Amino acid sequence: MTLKSYKVAVVGATGLVGQEMLKILEQRRFPVKEIVPIASERSAGKSVRFAGSEVPIRVLSTPAFAGVELALFSAGGNISRDFAPVATSAGALVVDNSSVFRMDPDVPLVIPEVNPEAIQLATNKRIIANPNCSAIPLIMVIHALCKHVRVTRVVVSTYQSVSGAGRRALQELIAHSQDLALTSPRQYAFNCIPQIGEFTDDGFTAEEKKIPQETHKILNDASIGVVATTVRVPAKIGHSLSINLECADAISLETVKDALRQADGISLVENAKDYPTPLDVAGKDDVYVGRIRRDPTVPHGICLWAVSDNLRKGAALNAIQIAENVLL
Amino acid sequence: MTLKSYKVAVVGATGLVGQEMLKILEQRRFPVKEIVPIASERSAGKSVRFAGSEVPIRVLSTPAFAGVELALFSAGGNISRDFAPVATSAGALVVDNSSVFRMDPDVPLVIPEVNPEAIQLATNKRIIANPNCSAIPLIMVIHALCKHVRVTRVVVSTYQSVSGAGRRALQELIAHSQDLALTSPRQYAFNCIPQIGEFTDDGFTAEEKKIPQETHKILNDASIGVVATTVRVPAKIGHSLSINLECADAISLETVKDALRQADGISLVENAKDYPTPLDVAGKDDVYVGRIRRDPTVPHGICLWAVSDNLRKGAALNAIQIAENVLL
Repeated sequence: MTLKSYKVAVVGATGLVGQEMLKILEQRRFPVKEIVPIASERSAGKSVRFAGSEVPIRVLSTPAFAGVELALFSAGGNISRDFAPVATSAGALVVDNSSVFRMDPDVPLVIPEVNPEAIQLATNKRIIANPNCSAIPLIMVIHALCKHVRVTRVVVSTYQSVSGAGRRALQELIAHSQDLALTSPRQYAFNCIPQIGEFTDDGFTAEEKKIPQETHKILNDASIGVVATTVRVPAKIGHSLSINLECADAISLETVKDALRQADGISLVENAKDYPTPLDVAGKDDVYVGRIRRDPTVPHGICLWAVSDNLRKGAALNAIQIAENVLL
Repeated sequence: MTLKSYKVAVVGATGLVGQEMLKILEQRRFPVKEIVPIASERSAGKSVRFAGSEVPIRVLSTPAFAGVELALFSAGGNISRDFAPVATSAGALVVDNSSVFRMDPDVPLVIPEVNPEAIQLATNKRIIANPNCSAIPLIMVIHALCKHVRVTRVVVSTYQSVSGAGRRALQELIAHSQDLALTSPRQYAFNCIPQIGEFTDDGFTAEEKKIPQETHKILNDASIGVVATTVRVPAKIGHSLSINLECADAISLETVKDALRQADGISLVENAKDYPTPLDVAGKDDVYVGRIRRDPTVPHGICLWAVSDNLRKGAALNAIQIAENVLL
C-alpha cells in the first residue's frame, strides 16, 4: 500500500510554533510530498531546514498556496483571518493555531484525544481551530475525569512560559536574565506578569476568557464553571497550571489517578513526592500531571498540577495530530 | 520626652531576612541603644553595617543574649527552637520569623494591621510569632473584606520568589540564569517548582498547610475554607498570589475596592488595566492588590491578584512592626 502524501504549507514557518511544526512533521513522519514554508517579507530570501534540505521561504501571498493540500497556520490572528480563506479556496485543509476562528460555530475546535468526532463538522469551511495552549492541558484533565464524575467548577491559575509570547519575548527574557540592557514595557525576567492578552470589560484578560469558552465548546458542556487567572512567568518553555476541581459526586483519589493513567496523551507522575516542572516537560508530547490531592474545603474537591510543552501539545503537536486525524 | 531605647539582637543577621531587618530598623528609626548581630560560626570574624558603623558579628551562643531586650529571630526553625527560650530567659522579648512556634496556643501569631490585640497573649512565653510570608498578604486581603462580608472559602495559588528560599537559592537562580554551571536538584532558573517545604501525608506541602492554619489562627475563625498551591517561580523578590474568594453574601466590586483602599498596609492598584508585579513591589512596604474582578462561577465570588515583598512585609517588616507595637 502506498500512502498518499501531501503538499503542506506552514504559515509562520520562522516562528517558534512554526519551527516546532516543521520538527514534528519530520518526527512523526507525516507524509509530506512538498513542504511550503511561508513567512512575512522580513524572512524573504531566508530558508528553513526540513528533512535534510534547505527549503526557501515563500513570502505570504495568494500564489504561495497554489496546490497546497494542508495549511498549518501559526502567524497570528490577522494573518489567519486574511489568508485561511485563501488557503481553503486553493483547496487546502486549514488547521489554525490562532484564536480568530475558535468560537465560530462552523469551525470545529479539536483536541484529538478529547473530541475527534468534531472534526467532521469541518466539511463546510475546511478550517479546524487548534485550542489555546493552556486550555488544552486543562481540558484533557477534565475530560479524563468526566468518564467517572461530573466536574462542576474549575479554578485554574496558570504559570505560562515566555515562549508563548513568541521569539522576541523569549530573546528578551534571556537578555534580561543575563543583565543585558533591553527596553520592554514589562520585564519578563525575574518577574510575574498577570496579563496575557488585552483586558476585557469585566476585568478578565483575553487569555482568561478563552479558557472557559474553549472548555465549553470542546466538552460541549456550557454548564461547567471555569474561572482562570493567567500569568506569564520566566520559564522558557512549558505552561504550568494549578487546578482546583469541584465534582458533583464523590470520587476517590485512586479513581482520579486511574482515569489520568488511562487517558491518551496524559502522563501521571506516580511518585507522590515528585511532580512535573517546565524544565522536565519541554520537548515532550504528553500533558504531565502530578500533586493530586483532596481539596478539603469543598465536598468533592480535587487539586492537581499539570504542565505541558506549550509549543508542542499546546500548539504545533495538537495541530498536526488534527491533520493526521483528517488526512491519514 | 526621652524615648526608651533598646538593646536589639538580630539572629540570622547575615541572611536575606536578617539583613532586611537591620535595614528596616534603621529606616523606621527604631530606638536601638545597641545592636547585636548574631550568626553561625561561618560568619565568625565578619561584621555587618548598621547606622553607619561596622558591628562585629556575635557567634550564636547563650552569652550573646546577655542584656538583650528584643531578639528578632530569622535563622530557621531549629535555631529558634533552641535559642528563643535562651533569649527570653535573658529577659528579651522574642519576635520569631520561623514556623516552630506559630501554632503554639501560648504564642500569638500577629499581623499588626489585622490582630494587634493578640499581642497581649505574649505575657507568658514572651515569644511572638511572625506569620508565613504568603499567609500575610492573603490574610490582610481577607481581613480587609471581613468588615463587609463573610468570606467562606479561598483558593490561592502562589508564585513565590526565590529569595524566600534564602541567599544560596537566590545565588543559584542568578548563576543558572546566566548559564553558569551549578548543581542543584531542581533548577530555579526558567522553571516553576510546585514544592515549598516537605510533603505531608495528604499530599500538601508544609507551606500549603501553613497558609490555612495561620489564616484560622490570625483571624480567629476556623470556619473559613482555605486551600493553597504554593509554587516557587524565578522571581528574585516578591511573592504573588492568585486569589479566588467566595463570600456568604453579595458584595459589590466597588465595596471590595473601598475596603482595600481603607485597609492599613494595603495599596490598591487603581487603574483596572494595570497590576502589581514582583519587580514593582520589591523594596516596598505595602501589600499591592489589583485585578479585582467578579468570579462568575459562584454566587458571590471575587478574583484578585496580590503581590508583596516577601523579605519585608512577608518577614522583616512585619516582625519589626510587631516589636514596635509591644515596645514603643
